[in-house]
Amino acid sequence: MKNYFLHNDWQIIEEGFNPEMHEAAESIFSIGNGKMGQRAMFEENYSGKTLQGSYIAGVYYPDKTRVGWWKNGYPEYFAKVLNSPNWITMDIQIDGESIDLFKNNPSNFKRILNMKSGLLQRSFDYSTSSSKKISVDVERFMSKEDDEIACIRYSITAHDNASVVWNSGIDAFVKNTDANYDEIFWSRVSEKSDNEKAWLKSKTNKLNFEICEGFFVKTFIDGVELSNVKYTSTDWKINSSWEFNLEKGKTYTMEKYVSIVSNMYYDADQLEQACADNLIKAKQYGYDELKNRHVNSWAEVWENADIIIEGDVAAQQGIRFNIFQLNQTYTGRDPRLNIGPKGFTGEKYGGSTYWDTEAYCLPFYLGTSDAKIAKQLLRYRYTQLDKAIENAAKLGFNNGAALYPMVTMNGEECHNEWEITFEEIHRNGAIAFAVFQYELYTGDKSYLKEGGAEVLLGISRFWAQRIHWSAAKKQYVMHGVTGPNEYENNVNNNWYTNYISNWCMKYTTEVINYIAETDKEYYVDFCTKTNFNTSELEKWSDITSNMFFPVDDELGIFLQQEGYLDKEQMMASDLPSSERPINQHWSWDRILRSCFIKQADVLQGLFLFEDHFDENTLRRNFDFYEPRTVHESSLSPCIHVIQATKLGYTDKAYELYLRTSRLDLDDYNKEVHEGLHITSMAGTWMAVVNGFGGLRIKENKLSFSPMLPKQWDGFNFLVRYRDSILNIKIDKENISVSTNAITTVDCEIYGNTISLEPNKVYTQALLK
Amino acid sequence: MKNYFLHNDWQIIEEGFNPEMHEAAESIFSIGNGKMGQRAMFEENYSGKTLQGSYIAGVYYPDKTRVGWWKNGYPEYFAKVLNSPNWITMDIQIDGESIDLFKNNPSNFKRILNMKSGLLQRSFDYSTSSSKKISVDVERFMSKEDDEIACIRYSITAHDNASVVWNSGIDAFVKNTDANYDEIFWSRVSEKSDNEKAWLKSKTNKLNFEICEGFFVKTFIDGVELSNVKYTSTDWKINSSWEFNLEKGKTYTMEKYVSIVSNMYYDADQLEQACADNLIKAKQYGYDELKNRHVNSWAEVWENADIIIEGDVAAQQGIRFNIFQLNQTYTGRDPRLNIGPKGFTGEKYGGSTYWDTEAYCLPFYLGTSDAKIAKQLLRYRYTQLDKAIENAAKLGFNNGAALYPMVTMNGEECHNEWEITFEEIHRNGAIAFAVFQYELYTGDKSYLKEGGAEVLLGISRFWAQRIHWSAAKKQYVMHGVTGPNEYENNVNNNWYTNYISNWCMKYTTEVINYIAETDKEYYVDFCTKTNFNTSELEKWSDITSNMFFPVDDELGIFLQQEGYLDKEQMMASDLPSSERPINQHWSWDRILRSCFIKQADVLQGLFLFEDHFDENTLRRNFDFYEPRTVHESSLSPCIHVIQATKLGYTDKAYELYLRTSRLDLDDYNKEVHEGLHITSMAGTWMAVVNGFGGLRIKENKLSFSPMLPKQWDGFNFLVRYRDSILNIKIDKENISVSTNAITTVDCEIYGNTISLEPNKVYTQALLK
Repeated sequence: MKNYFLHNDWQIIEEGFNPEMHEAAESIFSIGNGKMGQRAMFEENYSGKTLQGSYIAGVYYPDKTRVGWWKNGYPEYFAKVLNSPNWITMDIQIDGESIDLFKNNPSNFKRILNMKSGLLQRSFDYSTSSSKKISVDVERFMSKEDDEIACIRYSITAHDNASVVWNSGIDAFVKNTDANYDEIFWSRVSEKSDNEKAWLKSKTNKLNFEICEGFFVKTFIDGVELSNVKYTSTDWKINSSWEFNLEKGKTYTMEKYVSIVSNMYYDADQLEQACADNLIKAKQYGYDELKNRHVNSWAEVWENADIIIEGDVAAQQGIRFNIFQLNQTYTGRDPRLNIGPKGFTGEKYGGSTYWDTEAYCLPFYLGTSDAKIAKQLLRYRYTQLDKAIENAAKLGFNNGAALYPMVTMNGEECHNEWEITFEEIHRNGAIAFAVFQYELYTGDKSYLKEGGAEVLLGISRFWAQRIHWSAAKKQYVMHGVTGPNEYENNVNNNWYTNYISNWCMKYTTEVINYIAETDKEYYVDFCTKTNFNTSELEKWSDITSNMFFPVDDELGIFLQQEGYLDKEQMMASDLPSSERPINQHWSWDRILRSCFIKQADVLQGLFLFEDHFDENTLRRNFDFYEPRTVHESSLSPCIHVIQATKLGYTDKAYELYLRTSRLDLDDYNKEVHEGLHITSMAGTWMAVVNGFGGLRIKENKLSFSPMLPKQWDGFNFLVRYRDSILNIKIDKENISVSTNAITTVDCEIYGNTISLEPNKVYTQALLK
Repeated sequence: MKNYFLHNDWQIIEEGFNPEMHEAAESIFSIGNGKMGQRAMFEENYSGKTLQGSYIAGVYYPDKTRVGWWKNGYPEYFAKVLNSPNWITMDIQIDGESIDLFKNNPSNFKRILNMKSGLLQRSFDYSTSSSKKISVDVERFMSKEDDEIACIRYSITAHDNASVVWNSGIDAFVKNTDANYDEIFWSRVSEKSDNEKAWLKSKTNKLNFEICEGFFVKTFIDGVELSNVKYTSTDWKINSSWEFNLEKGKTYTMEKYVSIVSNMYYDADQLEQACADNLIKAKQYGYDELKNRHVNSWAEVWENADIIIEGDVAAQQGIRFNIFQLNQTYTGRDPRLNIGPKGFTGEKYGGSTYWDTEAYCLPFYLGTSDAKIAKQLLRYRYTQLDKAIENAAKLGFNNGAALYPMVTMNGEECHNEWEITFEEIHRNGAIAFAVFQYELYTGDKSYLKEGGAEVLLGISRFWAQRIHWSAAKKQYVMHGVTGPNEYENNVNNNWYTNYISNWCMKYTTEVINYIAETDKEYYVDFCTKTNFNTSELEKWSDITSNMFFPVDDELGIFLQQEGYLDKEQMMASDLPSSERPINQHWSWDRILRSCFIKQADVLQGLFLFEDHFDENTLRRNFDFYEPRTVHESSLSPCIHVIQATKLGYTDKAYELYLRTSRLDLDDYNKEVHEGLHITSMAGTWMAVVNGFGGLRIKENKLSFSPMLPKQWDGFNFLVRYRDSILNIKIDKENISVSTNAITTVDCEIYGNTISLEPNKVYTQALLK
């Protein structure tokens, strides 16, 4: 579907209506505000294919696990993002016939997502079966400022006379497409209406999530407000009905104001009041003011996070789309929330939290938002430490060893493939690394004593038990893991997992020593609470001093796992295009036996621990592994862009950048109809900032080594660092850096430290 | 439930009724005749827990696959044994109240399965809620002689006067408990009745299996036949109704004659006629003659297959139970049928054919039945060769490479766990080995040209493609397999699989050379049909000459797989009993990482290829692996009994024998309510005959090296060999061998060849 959506700096544009593309467009045009989100279904009835999706952050359903063959240790439930009441629905009958763009295709159809303002707009001309013609304009937003309020402004301009019945309401009888046993997840609680509004409550059949959604409408003819709407309620549904006669030439407008609240934020018995309060607030502000507040809120986001790419509109649109979607998904306001792989754009993958959060999203939020937002992501894991300890206990670990889940909503594991659930344990490493990265980026060690050290201890305890002594090797080994490259399962001594596990134990030791030295009181509390004993440090030290790491001395590379070189060695470029992606063409055993790599594995380690290795080591490993990598994870290309840039492989870097930045807009994997790849969007940001921008975090400063892809005229990005924002601008000749700080800020350019003074632009020549 | 069923040489006896045990008893008391089978549900209504199960051989349903996460290559369907119409059902109302042994528990309840005669008998005293007393006697059989006919004789002796309505019929509205999506598998076709009988037809909703079941009853008062029954039919059901008044002291008997036919054996439009013909035949014979024919047929089985154990009633009962159930399950009359893991005793595991058939059942049928029965098992696989080639093609293999399915009904793979479906490929070796074993046992090479060579070629082609050259090792290797020990998944160079794969290529080479030398005409046909080229033999020879086999020279053992010694080494005896079986207590990853072995793996190879290795090699490997084996497969102990016996480890042999012989009768695994472990029953036979009897097949003779467990006074078994039956009797002092052959038969006793003369008993002292 390359080029289906028009290229534009700030907008995603669909011109002309294509029912085949509608579900994909529903994903692409999704809107959200971190607390709720909505696929871009049409307001009107639509009899064609559509994936209904309205989501409320944190409200989920534990769907009974479905597997073919049960394995001991599998979780009983898989937490699913819940499709919740449909609040956009409008049934607009013209001379008794409902508008339905599938039945009667529109002309001059145009759909625009304005990323600058966060507005979804749509316009089209429509003719009923009996040829009554109208023009329609619709605008929709979920307020980023008033995050329990959403609005629609829907206008019909008449080109004929006709009678109209315009029903608009909320429909709570919704199902999840992705329900293991076709269960209905919701129960009715109540539906009510009065003269001014209607509202309903629903409750999940498990876990007692309760929500209240209410709305009112304003109606206008040629801008003059009327008061002629009747509100009603029936089982599962609330409705407003506006009946009138269209007069040719006149414009009829309905503004729909919706409030959505859940018992995540209110007591269940306060929900109706909270909902009503929101509606009162909405009425007071009115549509235009609500919209202003929303647009201003987006302006703030862009002020901190925009990336400008010059000379390449597709790339410009791609990177903004990614930044936009990430900001629609997560705001950091609530430490119970996290970043689902599909955000608010689809049901697939259920759950909300993968290691993507720490490995990809955390750097994005650190670089573009206040540190407290990143800290919320850390707190999320601390809050779930008890569950991680329970999770490990289920697998036979003890003494406070913690295994964070592969997929989770509330800290409980949701996933049920043994090779992932029980074996893709490197996720624990990413969660520890996030603590380190936060500390390095912010310089703030306070989180270590607010839970960070406990998280690190649980993780290191897990590693110490998961690793065992091999009498045969006379070294410590780790068996039965799945590394980041999920095209290998149940391997022994995955270099990446071995490496990060050892790093965890070393870093945890440092942190515990730091605490013991600097805060005796907390240290005593910590030891008591966790039953920590310094003999554990000795054990860890013994492990890290005697760990086995698979290497090949001849090639000078780290081995992805023991025996990797026994595989038949092939290059990804040898694969016929008819067999790619291999995960859609090859059986699983064939994939496992092949040397092909799904996403960075050894290279993921060299990315995270870049400073531990020299550039030649990186080069040898990159030269060996990248050609064997098929990049069939959306998380793969970005890491390689960063490394290719560093190694001066600029063509390779740009080629891989293209794969990541427009993954969804160009639907590379033919699956965008299921929703967007939200977490990998953060990887795209990294590809620009850490890749082409060459950003690295050093002790107490940022460092940049930019390069400019030859396809671009220049690019410009902002990075938030501690109390200031750095503005980095690269054109064909120069790199310019400035800061909004009020004092001098140090940073490194190509390894040289420079002191940026407030309001001065530092410029130097771009290295080529 | 040890000792719940009373010990008896020829009978399984339940005394007293225990509703908690009813489902287990339904499995234990199952009857069948190879063409159909039936769990021992009660005829009367029963409101307690019961697992309804009536099965018709070859009639199955492709149930849509259910998995958590789809892997490329998974089969779309899992063929399920079909629960089919309930033909035993009787609703007997006494003064308007149905007999229900759950509501009003019976007294003097006794249930007997007579294994000698194949009769299921039951008697009890019963009192209605209003204290009307009766005594009941029931007998049931599915005729082994007339294998589309089943009979019930149900007698009520009155101790009070009461009115009775005795409905008896067939109920076709049945479901599978094990249905992935709760689907109904059957559709109604028709129900009909006339003055003498009633019959119905049903059809499966997929694959067009169609069945017709009909019945008539005879009724008697004190042995005097009446003619007062009315037949009716309604949707899904046919019925006969007999209304009368019980008179104290009189006995009322109903004989129910049932015919069950399917379009496996008749055109669909002939089914009604075939069913009617059976009923006419049944009427002509009458109950007693049908029963005689059935009992005589069982007598023939025992004449060929009985094993007598003296001094140990539990062991005697156990071995007869196993022989009995195997003969209920498979008769070899139809090459489309095979031996399901639960036979006709439950739905679990679906499918009908596992590698159990070749590895365990084939030796049993070779040793106890005419060779043509074993040949049917070989022909089953030949018939399915095309599907095995398709199956391999789905996984990326070509040029006629064949991978037989792990679980199948019609040749298509049913299983859907990648680590089994795609990786437990040693099954292919067992299927080739069966061809070899049949040839060795029977001396008959004819099957090689009737399909055997084609099967071998397909299998060897698979191995040649599945094995690859390791440039690192400079040897051929096989990656990504699951060996017989399913507590390891996705390992590299499993010794057993490497060994049997190489053996396959060598044996296939021999067979092809033999054919080329002895039958040029067939050889040309063979080459044309299979596109065979002698360069394939060169490739195989290169592989078998340069194959990697993992060994440990220091311990002098073959390694189960590469890296096995890197595991933490523990003994099964170190496991606390609270953690056993580990498959019910440990998470899957923990099982995989441990050194514990589910069932013989290296030792399976040393069992099949015993002659390739010296006794010290066997001893070193047994001493190493058996203590690490947890025997959590029903197929495990028997192989170890055989090897322990050979090595003189008599206590170990007897301990393991107990685990296999009464597995179901004593419900070791707490799962007998789901059905019996039919295929492993053949392993028990092997434990006695190949283990304690020391039977081995040598070129053109059998060889025996018996030992007597000290718990036994003696044992006696029959082995069919070519045209004769050998009778081997062991007591505390001697071994006696005789034959029913009319000419001299050679055999070996403890390595010495002796010539058995007809009608003479050869006796020598038992070695101790």
